[in-house]
Amino acid sequence: MPKVVDHEERRAELGAALWRLASRDGLEAVTVRRVAEEAGWSTGAVVHYFSGKEELLQFAFRTVADRVGRRLAAAAERTDEPLELARTWLVQGLPLDAERQAEVRVWFAFLGLALARPELARAQRLTYRAWRGRVAALLQEAQRRGQIRADVDCSAAAAALVAVVDGLAVQATFEPRVLSGRRQAELVDQHLDALRA
Amino acid sequence: MPKVVDHEERRAELGAALWRLASRDGLEAVTVRRVAEEAGWSTGAVVHYFSGKEELLQFAFRTVADRVGRRLAAAAERTDEPLELARTWLVQGLPLDAERQAEVRVWFAFLGLALARPELARAQRLTYRAWRGRVAALLQEAQRRGQIRADVDCSAAAAALVAVVDGLAVQATFEPRVLSGRRQAELVDQHLDALRA
Repeated sequence: MPKVVDHEERRAELGAALWRLASRDGLEAVTVRRVAEEAGWSTGAVVHYFSGKEELLQFAFRTVADRVGRRLAAAAERTDEPLELARTWLVQGLPLDAERQAEVRVWFAFLGLALARPELARAQRLTYRAWRGRVAALLQEAQRRGQIRADVDCSAAAAALVAVVDGLAVQATFEPRVLSGRRQAELVDQHLDALRA
Repeated sequence: MPKVVDHEERRAELGAALWRLASRDGLEAVTVRRVAEEAGWSTGAVVHYFSGKEELLQFAFRTVADRVGRRLAAAAERTDEPLELARTWLVQGLPLDAERQAEVRVWFAFLGLALARPELARAQRLTYRAWRGRVAALLQEAQRRGQIRADVDCSAAAAALVAVVDGLAVQATFEPRVLSGRRQAELVDQHLDALRA
């Protein structure tokens, strides 16, 4: 049995082991037994925190979403200019290093798992909706300030921009040499520039 | 034991069962036992064609790639105009109906599986390379005919276009109502129009 320590701390320790496993070996590896091995815990101790594979997967999903979210929040503190902020919310989704490439792989792997898991599909849908909504609100603010053309449909533009980032993420994960980080950011900038007044 | 029938026919029958399973329940469901159940075969009969999960996954990957490839080839027969053909090669990758949405989910699920499977990662990389290469060659031909601006880097443009299609595919799979088929095609057309001379 684990020693009596802070519950959240133990859960975070387990979360770190879960993430190492998922980003190294993929979501298939996410089972109670393998997470226990990775963390150096007994399976019984793991089950104390996560009842089984479904809860582990939900936790893994939230882990990726939180990692990206924290990076976004940190980057967003550097500016309050809406177009610059919209750019930040987009560019931070790009796999600009090996760590983020692993995140992207895990992220898209969830797409396949969601086929047979409505709850996971819902979590993904809400995450995308929030991302798109945030970018759309920033574009609208930029439009109010006269920085974006009046004829731009900001919701549609946000959906397209998020799509571009996702697509670049996939391409760049398959072939980092074909789409460098600089080139990825340039392509996002081109799309943003096309909206400018 | 299965009756003695044509080997390829039996394999195709198994492939159809494998695809039904993968597109309904995701790649996790792709195991010798479940493919056997889905096809109404014994596991021994399945093993006669596929030695195990790895071969089943490789076959599932080729199945998605072949489905898209066949659709592309059929659509490509309708024109020999390079820009129109490039558009076809892009738009056919969009999930314009429920069947293609399932394809997209399975396709991206392979991204996650590839983390721990170099051979699968290689197959994905080669598929994307072929797709990008085909689009780039068509853009170059359009450029030679003066239809695309002389300053366009056709390889870079092809990488960006394929990324856009992939990203739209993900978005539209999560939320078909937000990005209708018409809107997806429009966004691809906007990107192509931006290259025109």
